[in-house]
Formats: sequence, C-alpha cells, structure tokens
Amino acid sequence: MLPAPIQSLLLRETPVAWLDEASRQIPILLIDQANCEKKAAATAVSLLHRSGLNERFTLELSRIAREELKHLELVLNACRRNKVESRHLSAGRYAGALRTWMNKREPERLIDQLLVCAMIEARSCERIGALLGILDGELRTLYEKLHDSEDRHFEFYIAEASERDAEYCGTRLTSLCQLDAELVTQPDPEFRFHSGVPGP
Amino acid sequence: MLPAPIQSLLLRETPVAWLDEASRQIPILLIDQANCEKKAAATAVSLLHRSGLNERFTLELSRIAREELKHLELVLNACRRNKVESRHLSAGRYAGALRTWMNKREPERLIDQLLVCAMIEARSCERIGALLGILDGELRTLYEKLHDSEDRHFEFYIAEASERDAEYCGTRLTSLCQLDAELVTQPDPEFRFHSGVPGP
Repeated sequence: MLPAPIQSLLLRETPVAWLDEASRQIPILLIDQANCEKKAAATAVSLLHRSGLNERFTLELSRIAREELKHLELVLNACRRNKVESRHLSAGRYAGALRTWMNKREPERLIDQLLVCAMIEARSCERIGALLGILDGELRTLYEKLHDSEDRHFEFYIAEASERDAEYCGTRLTSLCQLDAELVTQPDPEFRFHSGVPGP
Repeated sequence: MLPAPIQSLLLRETPVAWLDEASRQIPILLIDQANCEKKAAATAVSLLHRSGLNERFTLELSRIAREELKHLELVLNACRRNKVESRHLSAGRYAGALRTWMNKREPERLIDQLLVCAMIEARSCERIGALLGILDGELRTLYEKLHDSEDRHFEFYIAEASERDAEYCGTRLTSLCQLDAELVTQPDPEFRFHSGVPGP
C-alpha cells in the first residue's frame, strides 16, 4: 500500500504494459536504476550548496545523498551478480521533462526543484511497489531495499517545499501531478525506469 | 606518522603559525571543515558522471562520497554541541588555486582533477595530523575520525590518476607539489583549513 500523501499525488498507476516490458528488460531496468541513483545523489548534494545556514536541512540532505549512493552500490553489485554488463544508456525523458517544468527564477526555482524531487520519489515509490509484484528472488530483495527509503525521502522534500511557501506549492503541484501522469501513461519509445507505455 | 607516499608529496609541513591561529579560531576551523567536506563529497559525486562503465571506479567513488558526507554530519554535530553558529564563510584560496592549475582540455583535465583530489587528501591528512597535536577532548576525537579516511582516499585518487598515464602524472606532480607548498607557507589574509601562514 502506498502512503496516502503519495497516493494523492499520483493521478495514474504504472501501466501494466510498462510492467510487462520491465519483466523482459531487466538488464536495462538495472542499468537505468543505477543511473537514477547517481542522479538522485547528485541532486541531493547539489542542494547542499543551497542549504546555507540551515543545519537541519543540510543534515537530512546529507543522509539522503548517502542512502542514494548506498542504493547505487546495491544496484551495481546486483548487476555484477546477474552478469548485467554496464553500458551507456541515454537518460529517459521523465526527469528532463520535470526539470523543464521548473521555474527559471528564484525563489520559485528552489521550491519547484524540491517539488520535482518529491514527485520523483513518489513515482519511484509507486513504481517499485508495482515491480515487487512481478519480481522474485534476489532482484525482489534488492527492490525491497530500494523501496524502504523512497517514502521518507518524499516526505522530506515535500515538507521542505511546503515550509517555504505552502500556497505556491498547492498551485504548482496540480500541474506537476498532471505532467507526471502524462509521462508515465503516454507512449514512450525508450524503456526506462520512469518511462511511459512502451510504444512509438 | 604520515604514510610514505603522502610524505613524499608534501615539500613543506603545516607551519606552526597556522597551528597557533587554528587554536584561536576553532569556530572558523569547524565551519570551514564542514564546507570542505561538502566540496569533497560534491567532487566525488561529480566524478561519478565521469566513471562511465568502470564499475570499480564508480563503487569506490560512491564509498568515498558517503564517507565525506558522514564527515560533514560529524562536523555539523560537533558545531552544534560546541555552540558554533553556522555562518557564511568565503572559500579559502587553496582549492581554487589547485583547480586553476588543472588543464582545461581532456583527457589531461580528468587526470589533473584526480591529482588535485589526491593532493587535497594528502595535505588534509598532514594538517589533521598536526591539529591532533594541539586538540583535546571531543574535538580531538572528531579529528581522529576525519583522519582515518584521508589516507585511503589519497591512495585511491593517486592510483586512479597513475593508471591513466603514469608518466604524465610524474611530470605534473612536480609542479602540483610546489604549488601546494607555496600555498600553505606563504602569507594568507584569511584563516581557513587549507590556508597559508596567517598574515597580510
């Protein structure tokens, strides 16, 4: 079961067609998962430079970054054990589209970035939950470990955004949730962890 | 005692005048230490994007980044317990000067960056060793923890650089060691963790 605050943001579930594709594309799923963990760590570390004098914000970002890095290591170890050879994968369209949605100007940009981080954690939480329904053995154990922290990370990012401007967040979340729902349900030629329905 | 490979790169020891200043400037020392740990983590994470398909390089960078973040958390907790209020501190001249020394063009730039990382770890190892001689109590315990990993991080960065082009590294290290020695012994108006002799 998804936590209620996450459920409320996700207008659409991960499509069954994506899950079917995932079961056929485990190597790409794992390689892209490693790339996502790298990016999540890089984002948390980049936010450290925005944390200024806010010690609580800094400490929590640092812990999140460490968890994402630990996940990266878990995924790479799973790749090695499953003989998945690392190769270059282009980034999926999802995170790039959410970044494009962000305001260019501060102070809105930082709040938007926190909302995007929250959205990615929320969708990852839902998608990993769906994956758990089709995985077994060692991969299931891996994804259970990844699943554990998405919810906490989501709560941190959404609370930090709301604390800065709750009213603004309310308005912005409407369009962000809509964008997320479109991206995960519309046809997407590239299979990735956050991709849409497989298709042209 | 410094490990021999580190000792061989450091042409000059941390001056006694810097240590005297450090004992009078504990709050600035701690705040700058936190900034240095943030930057060290950010550098390791940025190198993740250069690690491509090299799994061993990626895994070790990830572990280093996690250690630097753990150090950041230790320093911030020490600040809180010692009632050191966080405040904005400009960056010292040391890391910026080393970065300026780096080649602008690849593939030399990546090797230079690895050498700069090794140099910073080597100097930090020596400087923390010197600080241990003047600190006691909780701060001494903190710096002992920070000291533990500098040596390993140094070895990783220097090995990665040498593996790419040992001959190039030999030539470049001569000027890098000279630059480090100048920066830590010449007068420096700002007291920071990597600053020179206090003075105009």
